[in-house]
Amino acid sequence: MGKNLTKRSEDYSKWYNELVVRADLAENSGVRGCMVIKPYGFAIWEKMQAELDRMFKETGHQNAYFPLFIPKSYFSKEASHVDGFAKECAVVTHYRLKNDDDGKGIVVDETAKLEEELIVRPTSETIIWDTYRKWVQSYRDLPILVNQWANVVRWEMRTRLFLRTAEFLWQEGHTAHATKREAIAEAEQMMHVYADFAENFMAVPVIKGLKTESERFAGALETYCIEALMQDGKALQAGTSHFLGQNFAKAFDVKFATKEGKQEYVWATSWGVSTRLMGALIMTHSDDNGLVLPPNLAPIQVVIVPIYKGQEQLMAISEKAKIIMADLRAKGITVKFDDRDTHKPGWKFAEYELKGVPLRIAMGQRDLESGTAELARRDTLTKETIAQDDLVDTVERLLKEIQENLYNKAVNYRNEHITEVNSFEEFKEVIENKGGFVSAHWDGTIETEDKIKELTKATIRCIPLDAKEEAGKCVYSGKESTKRVLFAKAY
Amino acid sequence: MGKNLTKRSEDYSKWYNELVVRADLAENSGVRGCMVIKPYGFAIWEKMQAELDRMFKETGHQNAYFPLFIPKSYFSKEASHVDGFAKECAVVTHYRLKNDDDGKGIVVDETAKLEEELIVRPTSETIIWDTYRKWVQSYRDLPILVNQWANVVRWEMRTRLFLRTAEFLWQEGHTAHATKREAIAEAEQMMHVYADFAENFMAVPVIKGLKTESERFAGALETYCIEALMQDGKALQAGTSHFLGQNFAKAFDVKFATKEGKQEYVWATSWGVSTRLMGALIMTHSDDNGLVLPPNLAPIQVVIVPIYKGQEQLMAISEKAKIIMADLRAKGITVKFDDRDTHKPGWKFAEYELKGVPLRIAMGQRDLESGTAELARRDTLTKETIAQDDLVDTVERLLKEIQENLYNKAVNYRNEHITEVNSFEEFKEVIENKGGFVSAHWDGTIETEDKIKELTKATIRCIPLDAKEEAGKCVYSGKESTKRVLFAKAY
Repeated sequence: MGKNLTKRSEDYSKWYNELVVRADLAENSGVRGCMVIKPYGFAIWEKMQAELDRMFKETGHQNAYFPLFIPKSYFSKEASHVDGFAKECAVVTHYRLKNDDDGKGIVVDETAKLEEELIVRPTSETIIWDTYRKWVQSYRDLPILVNQWANVVRWEMRTRLFLRTAEFLWQEGHTAHATKREAIAEAEQMMHVYADFAENFMAVPVIKGLKTESERFAGALETYCIEALMQDGKALQAGTSHFLGQNFAKAFDVKFATKEGKQEYVWATSWGVSTRLMGALIMTHSDDNGLVLPPNLAPIQVVIVPIYKGQEQLMAISEKAKIIMADLRAKGITVKFDDRDTHKPGWKFAEYELKGVPLRIAMGQRDLESGTAELARRDTLTKETIAQDDLVDTVERLLKEIQENLYNKAVNYRNEHITEVNSFEEFKEVIENKGGFVSAHWDGTIETEDKIKELTKATIRCIPLDAKEEAGKCVYSGKESTKRVLFAKAY
Repeated sequence: MGKNLTKRSEDYSKWYNELVVRADLAENSGVRGCMVIKPYGFAIWEKMQAELDRMFKETGHQNAYFPLFIPKSYFSKEASHVDGFAKECAVVTHYRLKNDDDGKGIVVDETAKLEEELIVRPTSETIIWDTYRKWVQSYRDLPILVNQWANVVRWEMRTRLFLRTAEFLWQEGHTAHATKREAIAEAEQMMHVYADFAENFMAVPVIKGLKTESERFAGALETYCIEALMQDGKALQAGTSHFLGQNFAKAFDVKFATKEGKQEYVWATSWGVSTRLMGALIMTHSDDNGLVLPPNLAPIQVVIVPIYKGQEQLMAISEKAKIIMADLRAKGITVKFDDRDTHKPGWKFAEYELKGVPLRIAMGQRDLESGTAELARRDTLTKETIAQDDLVDTVERLLKEIQENLYNKAVNYRNEHITEVNSFEEFKEVIENKGGFVSAHWDGTIETEDKIKELTKATIRCIPLDAKEEAGKCVYSGKESTKRVLFAKAY
C-alpha cells in the first residue's frame, strides 16, 4: 500500500492528498468543498478534542452551544469584523422547498423567503456577544469563560482536506472580563494551552508570537498565535487567541456595573483551533510509507498481528495475545488484535504502516515456541525480536520514546529551517530554495509587509514572543528596526 | 427563587418554559427558533453524550462526520424521504455578501448564486448513503457501524426550548449490513440501548414499541421507538431506530459482492436521539421548586454550602470541607464547594434547589463543634443531621437511592396512567380528563388512526413490543383487532 504512495520529494502536495484518503482519514464529499471525516480520522480528532477539552476545563472553562445561524445585520455591528468574515459565506435565504409544477423534482418555494437572510456562522463572536448582553449585569457575572465545539462554514474557492475546507470543525472560546489586564492574561493563557497541546500531544513544535496588524483577526486588538513548520518548508498557523478589547462589547452594548457602581464595557477574548490541526499532525510526521502518529494521539497504539496456518495455530497465538492485551490495557495502552481471516499478514503490515500505528507486534508459531515476538516501530521502521516477558515493559517504554523521538525530529527540522538573513537578496534566496522561517528585520509598516508578500509570497507569520531587542535595518526598506520577525510561505 | 416559579398545576407549559430559563439550561436566541444551550444545560447534555457514546462504542460503533449541507437533488432520490424532510428546511442559495451600494450595510451578492441549492441537513441518510457507495464493494466492507454527533435544522413554526427547535443537537447512527436479518437486529439493538440509557441514566421509564405506518420515519420500513410519559399526561417520543430496508441502497446505488460473487443491495438502519431528551428529563422529574436531576446525570451531585460569620469561621469550615470533598471525589462523586462571599447561604440553597443538585450539605460553626453536617435531599426536600464521619457513606448511599426513587416515582406515575378502554366514549373521556396512555384495540387502518386523531388529538404512540395477542374490537370502528395499541396526546 505505502509502496504506491507518491513520494514527498516528487510532489509533496499530491503525497498529502493521497495519504489523507488512503489512510482512511477523510475524503471529499459530493458537496463542493465539504469533507467527510472517516472513522479513523475522526478517532484522532476525538482524541485531540478530549485532551483540549480537559485542558479548557482545567483552566476554568465550560462548554455551551450557540446557534448555527447568524442574522445578517449582526455582522454589520462590528466594523472590521464584517469585512473579514461576512463576505465569503453560506447565505440562507428561504425556509421551504416545494414540489415542482411539472412534478419531477423539488424547487425553492419563493413564498418562503426570509425577511432577513441568515448566515451560516463563519465564527460566532456576534451571536455570542448578542447573548452575553443578557448574561452580564454586574461584576458578579464576570468572568464568563465559555467554549463551544462546533462546525463553521467559510466559503473557500480552493479547498484541501483538513487544511482548507468550506465546512470545518473547531472549538471557539469566548470570554468576557471586567478588566483589560484579565482579558489579555486570558488570551495569553490560551495561546500557552495551545502550545502545550501541540508540543506534548501532537509532538509538533510551535513558535509563539503575535500577528502583525494586517494578519490579525478581524475585530481583534491583538492576535496571539502558534506557528508550526511542515516538512515542505511551509509554515502552518496552528491556533490563534485574540484579545478583542471592548470592540464587541461596544458593538453589542454589553456593559457591567463595577463594584463601585459605575457602568463599563466588558473586555473580550476569543480563541480557536480546528480540524486544520489534523493537517499539521499529518504533515509534520508522516513519511513516504504513510501516516506516522504520535502515540499520545494514536487511536490504536499497538496492533498485534498473528501469523498462522490453520485454526489450531491461531487459537494458540490468540490465547497468548489475550494475555498480552490485558496487560497492555491495564497500563492504559490501546491495543488491537487483528485476527481477520480475510487478509494476509503482509497486507495487514502494510495497512497499519499506512495508518501510522506506532507499534506492531507480530507473533507466529515459532515465536510461541521460543517465547518471543517481533516488535516493529513505525517511526524508525526498525524491528526487533523481544522476549514475551519483556513485551509489556518494552511497549510502554517505546511509546514514550516514539513520542519524544517524533517531537525531537520535528524540532531539529524546524530549528534547521529558521534562517537569519540580513539582505533582501538573501531573503529571496532562502524563501525560494531552502524554505522554512526567515528571521529578518522589518520596519513595522504594512506597505513593506505587502511588498514583500507580493515579491516573494512570504508573509510575516509572527513577531515571536521571545524575540530579542536588537537594533537593525529592515531587510526590504533599510529603515530602522528593533527586532526580527519570522517570515515564511504558509498554508 | 423556586418560590416565584409558576406551579405545574396552574400552567404546566409556562412552568416548563420558566424552569428551563431560570435553571440556566437554555434560552431563546436572537435567531427565530434557535436556542442557546447555557453552560449548566450543556453540562447535562455532555453527560448524556458521554454515556450514550460509551454505549455506542461498546456495541461496536465508531464516530465519523459528514457534511452539514446536502445538495437539493439528493433528497429527490428516495421518494418517501423527500416528502418527509425536504420541505420545511433552511435553504442556502448564495455564497457571498457584499457592501450595499449606499455603503450602509451588506446585501446578498446576486452574482454569487449557487447552481444547485444546498439544504442544511434535517437528517443525513442521503449524504451518508451517497458516501457509503464509495465505501462498499464487497461483503468484507460490511457491516458499517457509524454514528455522527451533529447539529440539524428543521424549520419549525412553533418552537419550544429543547422540545422543538429549528436547530437541535443530536446523534444519528447509520449502519449498512449484508443481510436483512442483521439490519433488523441492529435496529432492535439500538432501541434497547436507548431504553437502557433512558431508564438507568435519565431515570425515565419508557415503553418500547413499533410505530404505525403513518408515524414511521420517511423512508423506513419499520420504526422502533421508546415512548415516555410526562407529568402532564402527554407522551414524548424519546428515541427512534429505523429499519430502512434497501430503500437508500437502491436510491444511491450501494451494492456489494457477496461471498458467492453476486451483486446485492445493502441493508440499512438509522437511529437517533436529540437534545429533546433534555425536555424529557426536565419534565419527568422536576417540581414546583425547580429542576430535579437524577444523580447519574447531574453535573454537580453534591454541593457544600458553608454558613459562617467572618473569615476565621470560613477557614475552619473550608478545611473540613476539603477533606470531605477529597473523600467524595475518591469515590467518583462530583462535588462543588460554594464559598462565594457575594451571596448568602439562603440564596445559595434556593439556587441549588432550582438547579436540581441532588444533595446539599450545609456546615456551620455549630456543626464543626458537634462533628455534624446538615444533609438535604432535592428529590424529597427532606433534611437530616448527619455525623461527619458517616457523611461520605451516606452521600454514596443516598445518590443511589435518589436515582432509584426518581425512577420508581416515574414508573408509578406512568403505570397509573395507562388506561385500558373498550369504548370510544371511554377513550375520549380518559384522553380529555385523565391523560396518559390509553390502551385500546385498533383496526389497523390509517383511516381510523386519522379519524381518532382528528376527534381527540390523540395519536398512536406505539404498538408495544410486549403487547399480548388478544381478540377484540377496534375502539372506533368496531372492526376485528388482535392486540391493543397505545394512544396519547404527545409532544
